[in-house]
Amino acid sequence: MLKVGYIGLGLMGKPIAKNILKAGFQLMVHNRSRGAVDELVALGAESASSPAEMAARVDMIFTNLPNSPDVEMVTLGKDGVIESGNSGLICVDNSTIKPATARKLAEALGKKGIEFLDAPVSGGEIGAQNGTLTIMVGGSEHALEKVRPVLNVIGKTITHVGASGTGQIAKAANQIMVAAQMVAMGELLILAKKSGADPEKVVAAISAGAAQCWALDHKPQRLFAGERQPGFKAIMQLKDMNIVMETAREYGIPLPLTAITTQLYAAMCEMGMEALDNSAVIGVIEKLAGVKLQPD
Amino acid sequence: MLKVGYIGLGLMGKPIAKNILKAGFQLMVHNRSRGAVDELVALGAESASSPAEMAARVDMIFTNLPNSPDVEMVTLGKDGVIESGNSGLICVDNSTIKPATARKLAEALGKKGIEFLDAPVSGGEIGAQNGTLTIMVGGSEHALEKVRPVLNVIGKTITHVGASGTGQIAKAANQIMVAAQMVAMGELLILAKKSGADPEKVVAAISAGAAQCWALDHKPQRLFAGERQPGFKAIMQLKDMNIVMETAREYGIPLPLTAITTQLYAAMCEMGMEALDNSAVIGVIEKLAGVKLQPD
Repeated sequence: MLKVGYIGLGLMGKPIAKNILKAGFQLMVHNRSRGAVDELVALGAESASSPAEMAARVDMIFTNLPNSPDVEMVTLGKDGVIESGNSGLICVDNSTIKPATARKLAEALGKKGIEFLDAPVSGGEIGAQNGTLTIMVGGSEHALEKVRPVLNVIGKTITHVGASGTGQIAKAANQIMVAAQMVAMGELLILAKKSGADPEKVVAAISAGAAQCWALDHKPQRLFAGERQPGFKAIMQLKDMNIVMETAREYGIPLPLTAITTQLYAAMCEMGMEALDNSAVIGVIEKLAGVKLQPD
Repeated sequence: MLKVGYIGLGLMGKPIAKNILKAGFQLMVHNRSRGAVDELVALGAESASSPAEMAARVDMIFTNLPNSPDVEMVTLGKDGVIESGNSGLICVDNSTIKPATARKLAEALGKKGIEFLDAPVSGGEIGAQNGTLTIMVGGSEHALEKVRPVLNVIGKTITHVGASGTGQIAKAANQIMVAAQMVAMGELLILAKKSGADPEKVVAAISAGAAQCWALDHKPQRLFAGERQPGFKAIMQLKDMNIVMETAREYGIPLPLTAITTQLYAAMCEMGMEALDNSAVIGVIEKLAGVKLQPD
């Protein structure tokens, strides 16, 4: 029986950990705040007092943390996985972090015989709950095959992209497109609204053609109903966009469109909308155009 | 038997006219250059020497012309439809033109009892050939019902958006999203390429998740094969983007993302890539980043 560790029981991590438990794996969890740990323990998980303690007792450790430094701390820091992890342990990072950090972790852990997979996910809280996430994997095929039984529980589409870091590159690519769709949706809905066309009819007219996309398929009905709660928080979208832009800078890749979508998410957060859904970036366009999609 | 007129037998108009003919309608055609007219006449269409001549002899006239002034000339100009069109005639404009021009034409024709529908299409040459276009209609429901038997032959999705001009607003909305998808696709493919990830694997990893869209579903395989021919020409995409930006300016709607995609299509055309497919806007990102998706 595979022993699985999960570190980071947040919006995404908690439902993922629950699905791993439900599928019958032995689960050990660790989290900064206690509430989510107690919840998982009540369902049958064990609790680990530190990543190091966990590393000595499981076959693989998943991490799902806010940003690059968090994953680095839990992995390479004090009481981190590297302190007690033995050769053969596999670390699988479900967080969205910098590709450069993923490669650094893979290298450092590799020296102790610990394998590292960057395995960021897409599909949001609902995908995490339903076990239908898209998982983009960078690292060795060999390690991927060992953790695949667990990944199959978390996600529907699992793609091995290539060497360490390429899973995070795929996630960056994903966020380039997601942000473009969300902002374009905001712009076209406000164009319709302010020019006197019915935004719902406009969406109906275009969503079966070349404009078809995930955002137009899933978000307009929520926006028309005045629903702007996450889903996927704007502040996390902005964090991901900053990773994209930093990575693009490292590789010398000017990204004019992504620069703009990043700035609009930055504006959204500065305007106090950081806790809303990423589709609520339409709120920035509303303020620029002085018109609202629907009455307050 | 409905008598149908079609003016403008270009890349889109010619296959549409052929489909109308194939469906059994009586067809009369008019076009600036003679070649396409002869082709349609050989298939059984009649030829009209001018829009005015056509207007006296058909029940409805479709137009499919490059830009706003062309449609205005054919409709309201010398030897135009308005000169001999009788009350009850219906004009259906399949071109992509300014919403403001569509409203102007509707008003001018309306004074003579001629109805006008703006009915721009999306779906490209292939959609025109297969009769699977998306049609966005502005104007009266009454006129739409009269021309619907013909529209059913040219398109798969027909949506009545609202009053005159709203069909063109929907097309503008469509182009906001299409341009965003195309440019974002270019940026993410070049990010993958230059950072050492396999662009094909990256597309495979993300295209079933929240990044899913028409562009990622249809264009990457062509780009990977080095195929950048249209499809839908960049110069026409730029024309449409200029309509979007002009319309946004008229209504006082700042569109930061669309301003950028418009500029990138402008750059593409200035760089000599105006006759390539709209997905070939990746060529601009390639030049900015100093890297090509695949060897020459």
